[in-house]
Amino acid sequence: MRPSGRAPEQARDIKITRHYTKHAEGSVLIEFGDTKVICTASIDESVPRFLRGQGKGWVTAEYGMLPRSTGSRMSREAARGKQSGRTVEIQRLIGRSLRAAVDLEALGERQISIDCDVIQADGGTRTASITGACVALADALNTLVENGKLKASPLKQMIGAVSVGIYEGHPVLDLDYPEDSAAETDMNVVMTDKGGFIEIQGTAEGESFNQDEFDAMLKLAKKGIEELFELQQAALAE
Amino acid sequence: MRPSGRAPEQARDIKITRHYTKHAEGSVLIEFGDTKVICTASIDESVPRFLRGQGKGWVTAEYGMLPRSTGSRMSREAARGKQSGRTVEIQRLIGRSLRAAVDLEALGERQISIDCDVIQADGGTRTASITGACVALADALNTLVENGKLKASPLKQMIGAVSVGIYEGHPVLDLDYPEDSAAETDMNVVMTDKGGFIEIQGTAEGESFNQDEFDAMLKLAKKGIEELFELQQAALAE
Amino acid sequence: MRPSGRAPEQARDIKITRHYTKHAEGSVLIEFGDTKVICTASIDESVPRFLRGQGKGWVTAEYGMLPRSTGSRMSREAARGKQSGRTVEIQRLIGRSLRAAVDLEALGERQISIDCDVIQADGGTRTASITGACVALADALNTLVENGKLKASPLKQMIGAVSVGIYEGHPVLDLDYPEDSAAETDMNVVMTDKGGFIEIQGTAEGESFNQDEFDAMLKLAKKGIEELFELQQAALAE
Amino acid sequence: MRPSGRAPEQARDIKITRHYTKHAEGSVLIEFGDTKVICTASIDESVPRFLRGQGKGWVTAEYGMLPRSTGSRMSREAARGKQSGRTVEIQRLIGRSLRAAVDLEALGERQISIDCDVIQADGGTRTASITGACVALADALNTLVENGKLKASPLKQMIGAVSVGIYEGHPVLDLDYPEDSAAETDMNVVMTDKGGFIEIQGTAEGESFNQDEFDAMLKLAKKGIEELFELQQAALAE
Amino acid sequence: MRPSGRAPEQARDIKITRHYTKHAEGSVLIEFGDTKVICTASIDESVPRFLRGQGKGWVTAEYGMLPRSTGSRMSREAARGKQSGRTVEIQRLIGRSLRAAVDLEALGERQISIDCDVIQADGGTRTASITGACVALADALNTLVENGKLKASPLKQMIGAVSVGIYEGHPVLDLDYPEDSAAETDMNVVMTDKGGFIEIQGTAEGESFNQDEFDAMLKLAKKGIEELFELQQAALAE
Amino acid sequence: MRPSGRAPEQARDIKITRHYTKHAEGSVLIEFGDTKVICTASIDESVPRFLRGQGKGWVTAEYGMLPRSTGSRMSREAARGKQSGRTVEIQRLIGRSLRAAVDLEALGERQISIDCDVIQADGGTRTASITGACVALADALNTLVENGKLKASPLKQMIGAVSVGIYEGHPVLDLDYPEDSAAETDMNVVMTDKGGFIEIQGTAEGESFNQDEFDAMLKLAKKGIEELFELQQAALAE
Repeated sequence: MRPSGRAPEQARDIKITRHYTKHAEGSVLIEFGDTKVICTASIDESVPRFLRGQGKGWVTAEYGMLPRSTGSRMSREAARGKQSGRTVEIQRLIGRSLRAAVDLEALGERQISIDCDVIQADGGTRTASITGACVALADALNTLVENGKLKASPLKQMIGAVSVGIYEGHPVLDLDYPEDSAAETDMNVVMTDKGGFIEIQGTAEGESFNQDEFDAMLKLAKKGIEELFELQQAALAE
Repeated sequence: MRPSGRAPEQARDIKITRHYTKHAEGSVLIEFGDTKVICTASIDESVPRFLRGQGKGWVTAEYGMLPRSTGSRMSREAARGKQSGRTVEIQRLIGRSLRAAVDLEALGERQISIDCDVIQADGGTRTASITGACVALADALNTLVENGKLKASPLKQMIGAVSVGIYEGHPVLDLDYPEDSAAETDMNVVMTDKGGFIEIQGTAEGESFNQDEFDAMLKLAKKGIEELFELQQAALAE
Repeated sequence: MRPSGRAPEQARDIKITRHYTKHAEGSVLIEFGDTKVICTASIDESVPRFLRGQGKGWVTAEYGMLPRSTGSRMSREAARGKQSGRTVEIQRLIGRSLRAAVDLEALGERQISIDCDVIQADGGTRTASITGACVALADALNTLVENGKLKASPLKQMIGAVSVGIYEGHPVLDLDYPEDSAAETDMNVVMTDKGGFIEIQGTAEGESFNQDEFDAMLKLAKKGIEELFELQQAALAE
Repeated sequence: MRPSGRAPEQARDIKITRHYTKHAEGSVLIEFGDTKVICTASIDESVPRFLRGQGKGWVTAEYGMLPRSTGSRMSREAARGKQSGRTVEIQRLIGRSLRAAVDLEALGERQISIDCDVIQADGGTRTASITGACVALADALNTLVENGKLKASPLKQMIGAVSVGIYEGHPVLDLDYPEDSAAETDMNVVMTDKGGFIEIQGTAEGESFNQDEFDAMLKLAKKGIEELFELQQAALAE
Repeated sequence: MRPSGRAPEQARDIKITRHYTKHAEGSVLIEFGDTKVICTASIDESVPRFLRGQGKGWVTAEYGMLPRSTGSRMSREAARGKQSGRTVEIQRLIGRSLRAAVDLEALGERQISIDCDVIQADGGTRTASITGACVALADALNTLVENGKLKASPLKQMIGAVSVGIYEGHPVLDLDYPEDSAAETDMNVVMTDKGGFIEIQGTAEGESFNQDEFDAMLKLAKKGIEELFELQQAALAE
Repeated sequence: MRPSGRAPEQARDIKITRHYTKHAEGSVLIEFGDTKVICTASIDESVPRFLRGQGKGWVTAEYGMLPRSTGSRMSREAARGKQSGRTVEIQRLIGRSLRAAVDLEALGERQISIDCDVIQADGGTRTASITGACVALADALNTLVENGKLKASPLKQMIGAVSVGIYEGHPVLDLDYPEDSAAETDMNVVMTDKGGFIEIQGTAEGESFNQDEFDAMLKLAKKGIEELFELQQAALAE
């Protein structure tokens, strides 16, 4: 039934490559099938103005797509001079999600900047970004311990995210682009590895969805995110 | 327990004033307690370029706040030359929600522009905007029938929206500003008057939320939105 | 002769509603007939950089129109990323006019930000803005006295403004939109309640005007503004 | 009494140099004493979108100052990415003034773009711009006749402009920078060579002005502009 | 003598990976040592406005760096709303260089958009971009033949580019970042595989350079670019 | 052979007028035939943030063209809100070139801002700008000595620049617009009066150039720049 031949509850092949580029304190290439995102975490020893003098840190995120990461070329946001509404929406979601991973008081007055840049897109770029960026974030926080700046990592919990949806009337896990563009409902779920929810964003495209559909999607999402936490742990253990 | 003394499942006083300004095809002042939003619906007899020649219409939305609608003055977005990320996120939500109200094929090649401008803010401006704008939209669609441009209104269903959250450990309906700024979790729910979901956006602030909390919030939201549909019907019946 | 049936020297019904919104130190809804403007005055306990350390205060103003305050929808300046030339011209006029109302030395190093937002337009929005904003300004200055920040209000004089023009060959007071768009000459006059002029801006549209026409318009303006001062005083006395 | 030693009713030395640069259809260097402005008029054989198909032409104007035309260097508007409010206000005034010089129906569907660029500033740049640009405009309109595009020049009348003000309590003509920055009142007057007014803009700086002061200033302006018309005629006769 | 231990005439290890991402008609990862750039070539079946109706095609280029491709994080150009002067300069150089590779008449009215995105920077990103983008361009032009849109590839010649410089008094080939930031002179040379020069850009940093130094640098550049053409050919032969 | 009738090695008439405008510390009108550029040098007693506290000065440059300095009117960059890529490229070249003229340590923590504004364009505006701006720079540096701010001028050497190219197969010096738009190769050379090179930028337009053509162009450039140094010296000696 699915264009890829996957079972409804089957995610794509997911790969996490740490230390993908050499400059960032955390740098990860995450692949959800053909979706590929470079996620970096950069430490800045100061905080934005609104937080100065409060002894707290901050985590912020930016998101971008290479112009030809997609089937037809998109115009370059830097050249247009403006980030699209979709970009703004996604980077705000990534930032909120990853702030939940960190004890900001323990981080102290420094900021972690997350950059998620999609080099190839095939659906699910925002959930891949969150999942990969959390590994980069964990690595960056560890460098603060290695450099003697902090006694212990201020990482509170790992964060994972996956998309689910109703495709041709059935709930499916981890939509790729052909599914995403045809789905009746699309939902992004962000969770902690302790089982809590950070964000649930379900959106009807065209027709509304009902409680049963919602419950089925949420169940698939929980299962899918559990698998992500195993992959994150395996990557961090290497 | 609530700063306003309201019961957990009690919404604020809600007022819907139609024909609030004279130029727009639909013009509504909606009040959720001290939150006041002017919602207008404007008909444009053409569609954006990406839709031309497809025989379909479109509904789009923009959102703004007067600089001193809030406790301390915000800078004016027109003067800064840029809409904030929050503004972009909200107006995309309003647009998606209201497109679900309309049969876009039946609308034909015309666009309805929704403008939601907050003149006084006290929490819940985005849900008030959606709820009020749907009434303005219904009025605007009716003018198309009155002017002989359409035989019947392309309105498929009414849309209502409310916020719910976990405040001091308890699920509460329709958060005002003091609650919103202190809530552990904040959720916006958009539904149709046929009982379907259009959008569920739950966000943990600080701590994550669990399935029971989510279920309790969603139940409150359903109840609150049902009341909104009655108020919308009463207003449209006048 | 006038589309509204008014006599040449007759202004529209003018209403001033104080405390229109709850957050601003001064908040006024002013109505010149169908023209409705929300005017707020916000106190900021610091001055712009160019004035720091000089012991003087400042009054600045911004102006905007809701996109559908007009007969056909205008694009939203915040979305376009730019204020129009007309907007810039008007807000500079409002700022200059209201600075004349205040003893800036007595105000001390603080800034009053005036926001004039047109929610319904029918001609004369800039003169309505100035007239209403002066009441909001008086209220805001009084809060400085009530809060013990100043011993006495630094208000030097009240400011009022009205438009006059040559319509179908005759001088008329307080043009509404049908008159404004057909007038041969349009003039905005700003005065103090002590009888001085702050600003005279007369503009020929199409044909030039002569000295007699100018004198007749100025006489009408003086009369009209005198009435405004009475309305301002009555509103402030409530 | 005046810093320059001029009599109150004495304008500065005014020079008009036609054909100052070689590409523009009209190109004038105008000097009001040390104020020097290059004014060009460029013909474009199409009109802006809002005028297409109406058989009418248009005159528009832009204004700029070289960054070091002034005593201390101003930032370059092109580099800042934004024209200042003052620039916008001035170029709108120039455009309105020069449209009064031309029979737009007779011009046909073409646009004249006026550019006024200040290369050295010493007060009165906007009135020098209008006065010089009208000569450039006359030249540009004549090329349309010379090229056989029009049978007769659509020039209806010449336009001149001068500033007047109250300086140390006395009305003076054609303020230079030291006077302008100290003047109590500043007024710009734009007239036609048939004696009509196009624009009167009087602004109090600090203290208000009264009717007598206004009348005295206007009288000086009329006298000054008459001299400008002679200089324009002499320049065009060469 | 060189920080990397390379001989003066020794380039870094250079790798060219074709088909690096799946959507673009040409997609190459080029590595000059630790400098890594994704180069894509995208076909657009229309040309910019200034070329329409002339039967000619166009090649244009854009360049960007991921924010953390560098040692310390740079701000994201899309977020700042502006491309830096350096970015503009580089993308213009890439575009000019690659237009020399193509017979634009034979290409017909279509445009090739080159995107060069640096994912890791260690000096020489602009020359790596040109060298890699030419391979992507060759691939994209071949798809036009494969799809039957053209009978033969309009590729006239291959283009390669390398940097040379004076480092600690000696001419060296292919500067890495430590050399680049300390070099007295930096020169970028772009050549065709027929031995012609497309662009020579030599820049003194601090001290000027003399004819002998220039000649030595140019000789190194020729040798280095010859090696690049072999690597391009080997990659295209796979 | 040349449209102007000049010999291949013959530059245009070059004129340097010092003290062209009165406010700037250095102000020069330079004319290369019909190309006319106003070059000013302005002293600012502070440096950009990235240099503060290092005891060094800075030289920066901006470039602009009056909208009708060219054959057909260009849109005004300040109105468009963006400098073109060409403008950015040129002003970066001017800045780099003139920094080579000054001992930045001896200058101390102050910045010289160079403004080059083209009032009439006929090819070679960037090389005229560099050549004229160096005279303005020398004048500005001398005022620092005259005002007692520095004991000696920090001018290290004079800088001159000229364009050369291949026109109809022959190397020619100092291209005017008709030559520039038809040239096969265009090269800009910047040198010091001590004989060193600061910048060599050779660009093939269409066909590539070979070593012999390059050598011939460079020889012409050296000769042409030597003449410029004589003209600069003569102007500074006045």
